[in-house]
Amino acid sequence: MDRQMASGEDDLIARYFRPLATDPGAFGLIDDAALLKQSGDDLVVTTDAIVEGVHFLPNDPPDTLARKALRVNLSDLAAKGAVPAGFVLTLALREVSDEWLAPFARALGEDAAAFGCPVLGGDTVSTPGPLMISITAFGRVPPGKMVRRDGAKAGDRIAVTGTIGDAALGLRILKGRIAGEGLDAPSRDFLVQRYRVPQPRNALALAIRDHASAAMDVSDGLAGDLAKLCAASRVSAVIEMAAVPLSVPAHALLGKESADLETLVSGGDDYEVVCAIPENRWDSFIAAARQADVQVSSIGRVTADAAAPQFLDATGKPVALKRLSYSHF
Amino acid sequence: MDRQMASGEDDLIARYFRPLATDPGAFGLIDDAALLKQSGDDLVVTTDAIVEGVHFLPNDPPDTLARKALRVNLSDLAAKGAVPAGFVLTLALREVSDEWLAPFARALGEDAAAFGCPVLGGDTVSTPGPLMISITAFGRVPPGKMVRRDGAKAGDRIAVTGTIGDAALGLRILKGRIAGEGLDAPSRDFLVQRYRVPQPRNALALAIRDHASAAMDVSDGLAGDLAKLCAASRVSAVIEMAAVPLSVPAHALLGKESADLETLVSGGDDYEVVCAIPENRWDSFIAAARQADVQVSSIGRVTADAAAPQFLDATGKPVALKRLSYSHF
Repeated sequence: MDRQMASGEDDLIARYFRPLATDPGAFGLIDDAALLKQSGDDLVVTTDAIVEGVHFLPNDPPDTLARKALRVNLSDLAAKGAVPAGFVLTLALREVSDEWLAPFARALGEDAAAFGCPVLGGDTVSTPGPLMISITAFGRVPPGKMVRRDGAKAGDRIAVTGTIGDAALGLRILKGRIAGEGLDAPSRDFLVQRYRVPQPRNALALAIRDHASAAMDVSDGLAGDLAKLCAASRVSAVIEMAAVPLSVPAHALLGKESADLETLVSGGDDYEVVCAIPENRWDSFIAAARQADVQVSSIGRVTADAAAPQFLDATGKPVALKRLSYSHF
Repeated sequence: MDRQMASGEDDLIARYFRPLATDPGAFGLIDDAALLKQSGDDLVVTTDAIVEGVHFLPNDPPDTLARKALRVNLSDLAAKGAVPAGFVLTLALREVSDEWLAPFARALGEDAAAFGCPVLGGDTVSTPGPLMISITAFGRVPPGKMVRRDGAKAGDRIAVTGTIGDAALGLRILKGRIAGEGLDAPSRDFLVQRYRVPQPRNALALAIRDHASAAMDVSDGLAGDLAKLCAASRVSAVIEMAAVPLSVPAHALLGKESADLETLVSGGDDYEVVCAIPENRWDSFIAAARQADVQVSSIGRVTADAAAPQFLDATGKPVALKRLSYSHF
């Protein structure tokens, strides 16, 4: 409850964040509010927060935290078929440290520019507790075109982008649960980086918008998130475990003590997109994905069932997943 | 970093927040994102977070916290001349307690309905640290009509809504710094309530939009916030201390040890609006304020000066304010 001079927050904002506020709607961060000019588009709004010790490790570097905080939101926009329009940032800090803020702001600015998602405003607050970064991001879609979770239909293909499970393995490495196991340094770095800096699939947003009947980003584990998409759509799905796309390092770890398929499909932090694509759109979707240079894999089918999605092993037998995903509560 | 079953967050959302998500753009909180349908209006975006032990006291009741978290954002929308369109909520909780969440959600829903500002989405995260409530709120204005900080012109009147300094006194009471001093129980309750539950001036938003050349809400102290408005507008102001509107309980405390005028004009948490009104708009503004049933006081004038705003005492002498406002850093 102790308050010091007002200049503290203003100085901090002026020094680190005003240089990023190049969008006219940010008013150079001197106003109380930001402006998203009407454009005839609907606005998609998504908000995701990350907390030190819960969603990231206390020693994670500030530049990767900035990117992760923004990218987990960009990933939601991509899954909804939206084009980024900007974001607001709430930063809860224990202390004001140049050493932390300078690389944080620099990386945030780089990602904002790279993804065309400018900072529009924010709030910087003091906390006696863990560092917390909360971002609310906005995207534009033509009226009525947001891709929802609840449109999947029996017969649609289930597709996922990129590779699944890398981030869960990266987290295990950082926590010392995977040591050695024949993993070379570049592979370790790759998996750690997949945990620290997700690759949101915004390049695929228009293809998703044009072709997907339902989509969401995979943040809490493929199995659990797919179950949510199916529940929202009142359908089920059959997934071939062998078709779930894995990176080379993840493949190398498969079967070792530290990494079974269940870990990979329920591990979380993937920030890939899972979507349902009607069969008659599949070829166009794949062509658009190739154009966008985003890897897409067909992993199964939507079924008319109301049960939980089934994961089949290579012999076609259902795999009993002990857990589908994780929660922080 | 420990994660438990995914159902935790989903259950919590389903139980407490889904019943509030009546707006179609919220999709019943089952999607990753919310939708603000295009309406031809610009969207004003504001974000404000409150942290336990910094912006509120650990024993503040959950229902007043819900109202405060939303209202500090509504206050920004009012000052910008915007009509509320909805909000997203990030809630960082140490534990999931029915005893806390039930009244929190109930009060949030009541205020959302009362102010026409529906919940659209959010993120609920676990934290080992202090409770934190971060809200990003949206408001609509006709294109180009957002009231900014930087439009004040020399000769404009400076107006404030409501009364100033009550919340600062309420906080002092809660912290035990004002004990007795002849204050009766209803007066104490009034001041405490002014700290805990701000009264955002959304009823005045259209009048502000139609008549103000610049406006902002008073959150960090009238003196400091007015200085910011003047700096943004590249003007100064002369304020008559005696014209600053005070409540009866604040008047009663004035001159006692615990409360001088400086405390009141620099104390923060007022969530009133300070605005600049061109002289030729004054009568219409006052008429509109009366119509809206919001008290408005003329407290001074904008001057062409570049210096900091001056506060004059009853004899016309400048008062030297040791501090203009507070910051948490």
